[in-house]
Amino acid sequence: MGDPAGVGPEICLRLLAEPGITETAIPIVFGDAGLLSRCARQTGLPSPRRILSQFDWEEQAAGLQEPAVLDLGALNRDGFVPGQVSAATGAAAFRYVERAIAAAQAGVVDAVATAPMNKEALQAAGHNYPGHTEIFAEKTGSTRWCMMQYSEEITCTFVTVHCGYAEVPKLLTVERILEVIELTHEGLSRIRGRTPRIVVCGLNPHAGEHGLFGNREEETLVIPAMQAARAKGIETEGPVPPDTAFLPWKRKTTDAYVCLYHDQGHIPVKALAFEQAVNTTLGLPIIRTSVDHGTACDIAWQGKANPSSLKHAVSLAAKMARAQVRWA
Amino acid sequence: MGDPAGVGPEICLRLLAEPGITETAIPIVFGDAGLLSRCARQTGLPSPRRILSQFDWEEQAAGLQEPAVLDLGALNRDGFVPGQVSAATGAAAFRYVERAIAAAQAGVVDAVATAPMNKEALQAAGHNYPGHTEIFAEKTGSTRWCMMQYSEEITCTFVTVHCGYAEVPKLLTVERILEVIELTHEGLSRIRGRTPRIVVCGLNPHAGEHGLFGNREEETLVIPAMQAARAKGIETEGPVPPDTAFLPWKRKTTDAYVCLYHDQGHIPVKALAFEQAVNTTLGLPIIRTSVDHGTACDIAWQGKANPSSLKHAVSLAAKMARAQVRWA
Repeated sequence: MGDPAGVGPEICLRLLAEPGITETAIPIVFGDAGLLSRCARQTGLPSPRRILSQFDWEEQAAGLQEPAVLDLGALNRDGFVPGQVSAATGAAAFRYVERAIAAAQAGVVDAVATAPMNKEALQAAGHNYPGHTEIFAEKTGSTRWCMMQYSEEITCTFVTVHCGYAEVPKLLTVERILEVIELTHEGLSRIRGRTPRIVVCGLNPHAGEHGLFGNREEETLVIPAMQAARAKGIETEGPVPPDTAFLPWKRKTTDAYVCLYHDQGHIPVKALAFEQAVNTTLGLPIIRTSVDHGTACDIAWQGKANPSSLKHAVSLAAKMARAQVRWA
Repeated sequence: MGDPAGVGPEICLRLLAEPGITETAIPIVFGDAGLLSRCARQTGLPSPRRILSQFDWEEQAAGLQEPAVLDLGALNRDGFVPGQVSAATGAAAFRYVERAIAAAQAGVVDAVATAPMNKEALQAAGHNYPGHTEIFAEKTGSTRWCMMQYSEEITCTFVTVHCGYAEVPKLLTVERILEVIELTHEGLSRIRGRTPRIVVCGLNPHAGEHGLFGNREEETLVIPAMQAARAKGIETEGPVPPDTAFLPWKRKTTDAYVCLYHDQGHIPVKALAFEQAVNTTLGLPIIRTSVDHGTACDIAWQGKANPSSLKHAVSLAAKMARAQVRWA
């Protein structure tokens, strides 16, 4: 359900009421039922039809065929102010995620799609994680993982993500680039059901133009990683000049781009697949996708929030569950 | 005309024969007439109808009302192999540009649009420039200039361009960012005929998120440059997170993006305005635009080359000439 004070509750209400949703997946909102009812009254959205206590859940989870709310009782319906994240809302959001991860690990749910949390609220509650991804990695004991931004138009995976521009060259290693190539190949092979066509981006303008720009990171880091991948049977194309990588004709023949830094992939994903892209993590033993927006507290609890990103996240989670995109 | 061995000659032939071209501009190809006739025969494209000797040009340039070729006699029609650039073709390409710059400086032509040259050929001919832009800057004695990629969909100017990824932070200064903001404001004010809406991108993911990522380049470099611009009466917006800067709704309200490095702007320009974007230089005393592609020797002299980029370059050059986008 994400942070109770943000747009999470209302987009979950919209998801539960979405006609035909069960053709994609049976959504179970891990959250607070009283709080969702309050949000429904305040926004005029339909209240959840099926609410399960934790006891009901133990009994009925396996056979559940309709959308439902699992009432975790993490936060009193009146114990916070909509639009204002706090230690209390951060603690509740953390509880929802923790329980969802445990349910996925136990195989009771097939995948987890996360609504937005707030980093400051999380930290105020004593949970010191940069974001959802790191919670999932830690709770599942995963050390080999990478972010993927997925959409039908363009899909990117990331060698580095949340670090400064200047730190990127220091963080690039042959081993890490190889790891992301492998994760990308493994993930996309299952999603596509065939050998995926993977493009690896260079770091410098024009991919360095044979040493003209940069410190030959293409020759010393990217190419050796591609060669190591080839030795393991994974073919890739690159290092491709980052600007021509995303030309329209090139996108048509590329299943995924391995990007070396945050904005190399986030700029084209946001420019081309705005509201369609889903954030997911490759390399986890459970499937996890996420909305591509924040808690948007400025518009929270007004019934205005667009549930499109959550629907895309649920849809990709279902697709990944069918394709068994998880790592042992 | 660009390098004779590349696609320059054939795209110039197509431009000269373009129906209605004189409604946009009267194109004068600075090149070699014999060579263009050979190219016309080989490709089946129409031969130029009007050819001027250098003597004719002196006499007739002022009153010229139709597309024409100025025959500079720089290269013998049989003195090279199509598709193979050489010192001879590089020397000829340089001569065309040199003469075009002089004609623009003398006010005999209103603007220059350049077809592609080849850097190695240029250097083999003893002209040691990274590209067209630097020739224009040097020959016009310009020291305050920046690259602009212009299209109706998205326009970017560049604080740094052809350097390695890791060098960018070292090259960023308040003075240079301010210079590019000013050039962008001056250029777009004239092109748009009103105060342009300029967005300045941050360097780090999420524009640093208040120091969370990076070395506070947004606070120490970008913001002071924006404040200095404001003190000169130039309003800008930023530093904007580089990935959300190019969201569809944001593009609709932005006339130009000031980008800190090559791929920050070239990735979205190429992804969104492929074949429409025109490369131009702000800050010169003459107007200069350029095609957005290379000599494409692999398809040269086969009549296959697409003249679309040259047409866009001519069209922007004409627009900039009408708006007097030049610097004293």
